[in-house]
Amino acid sequence: MSRDRLTIIKVGGKIVEEQESLDALLRDFSSLDGFKLLVHGGGRSATKIAQQLGVTTVMVDGRRVTDTPMLDVVTMVYGGLVNKTLVARLQALGVDALGLTGADMDIILSRKRPVKEVDYGWVGDVVRVNGNALASLIQAGIVPVIAPLTHDGQGHLLNTNADTMASETAKGLAPFFDVTLVYCFEMPGVMRDRDDVNSVIPTIDRTAFNNLKAQGIVDGGMLPKIENALAATEAGVTDVIITQASALHDLTLGTHLHP
Amino acid sequence: MSRDRLTIIKVGGKIVEEQESLDALLRDFSSLDGFKLLVHGGGRSATKIAQQLGVTTVMVDGRRVTDTPMLDVVTMVYGGLVNKTLVARLQALGVDALGLTGADMDIILSRKRPVKEVDYGWVGDVVRVNGNALASLIQAGIVPVIAPLTHDGQGHLLNTNADTMASETAKGLAPFFDVTLVYCFEMPGVMRDRDDVNSVIPTIDRTAFNNLKAQGIVDGGMLPKIENALAATEAGVTDVIITQASALHDLTLGTHLHP
Repeated sequence: MSRDRLTIIKVGGKIVEEQESLDALLRDFSSLDGFKLLVHGGGRSATKIAQQLGVTTVMVDGRRVTDTPMLDVVTMVYGGLVNKTLVARLQALGVDALGLTGADMDIILSRKRPVKEVDYGWVGDVVRVNGNALASLIQAGIVPVIAPLTHDGQGHLLNTNADTMASETAKGLAPFFDVTLVYCFEMPGVMRDRDDVNSVIPTIDRTAFNNLKAQGIVDGGMLPKIENALAATEAGVTDVIITQASALHDLTLGTHLHP
Repeated sequence: MSRDRLTIIKVGGKIVEEQESLDALLRDFSSLDGFKLLVHGGGRSATKIAQQLGVTTVMVDGRRVTDTPMLDVVTMVYGGLVNKTLVARLQALGVDALGLTGADMDIILSRKRPVKEVDYGWVGDVVRVNGNALASLIQAGIVPVIAPLTHDGQGHLLNTNADTMASETAKGLAPFFDVTLVYCFEMPGVMRDRDDVNSVIPTIDRTAFNNLKAQGIVDGGMLPKIENALAATEAGVTDVIITQASALHDLTLGTHLHP
């Protein structure tokens, strides 16, 4: 039996914060055929609101250290302001959106990150995705809009990396759907030459990734992103694409990851 | 065929803001038998966060004037901080909670309040409750936790009175369940003498309400609360109770409203 297709879109902070790019993104998202799901970040707006509230932002290796006041800020900004604004906007476009954190319906359980060199505070590493619960919603025609927050099952919310939540959600739903996972990126894909938008690498598998790493063509923040993407394809996700938000209407573009 | 019972609990700002009363409330709520739903306010924490963000709070007749910066604040506080904290805490108590605003799954549509003597800004009056969508969730074992925000279907969130949301939700679910609606109150019920906690009036119908009003025994903020409650019973809600949060374990207590 052929399975239904599910498209999971991950969008980052900048795109959801600027009115014009957000409008375009939501129009493109609402036009996607078939089942779909949105995972969003929140980034810069949390830093701005934290500053106004007198909460100091500390980043280590690009990750936000989340003490109790900062957890309140990200719960307000990611779980409230960004998530509910997206939901209301999508409803106006005819998308039956439902905003979720990992705590809602226990969809994503995580574990507070153990303290090693760094104490990240209330930061979670995903333990499991409740694929059954999410699949039931999606099959009922609901479009989940997921904020980068999870819970530990003991009453605590945990700040969680949105890229990871997207790949874990894709893996958790792969038994139910043919899943396409799309990471929206500032660039049109993974590029051989970062100054040349025509140098997008159309496909990357594990071997190609190792070569690109060895040649220094991909480095920095791209490494965990591609690692996440490859791990998802290796765990049964049909297609993982790194592309520009403005190219959502044509998912043959961008960089496609394969096992 | 006898119908399933659904208990809807409305809790106000103070109870959900203080650690000790919140713990007790959530324990009592998790112990309630059968289908249930929670509607919460948020009140004072929004005022505090607004102040820290330099957003001025303006109240008219006890209602919050909601300009765009204040809408952002209540979306953060009610839809994010208060709602998601309750959801995570309930999950830890074995309740399969799902946090919702009226925009999520389009469960509560409202209309921006027309400007008469006062421009309340982004404040909504409920137009309709999507009873089908809510009933499906509840029948699947999910416990909705509803924040006092609705949407206009055109992409805008609207700040909405939590008491009204509770009575409208109760009315919208009355075709599906035998609904008991419980308003948690600072006092043990509607009292004949507000200095005597033993003077709770056990039942009030429309005639009794008119007499109590004429005698000046109920006035002020109690009038819209009882009006809301009576309207709900007149629209098919089986029982409406005004009681103390600490008396949730015994719903024979408090003041019961009847048509």
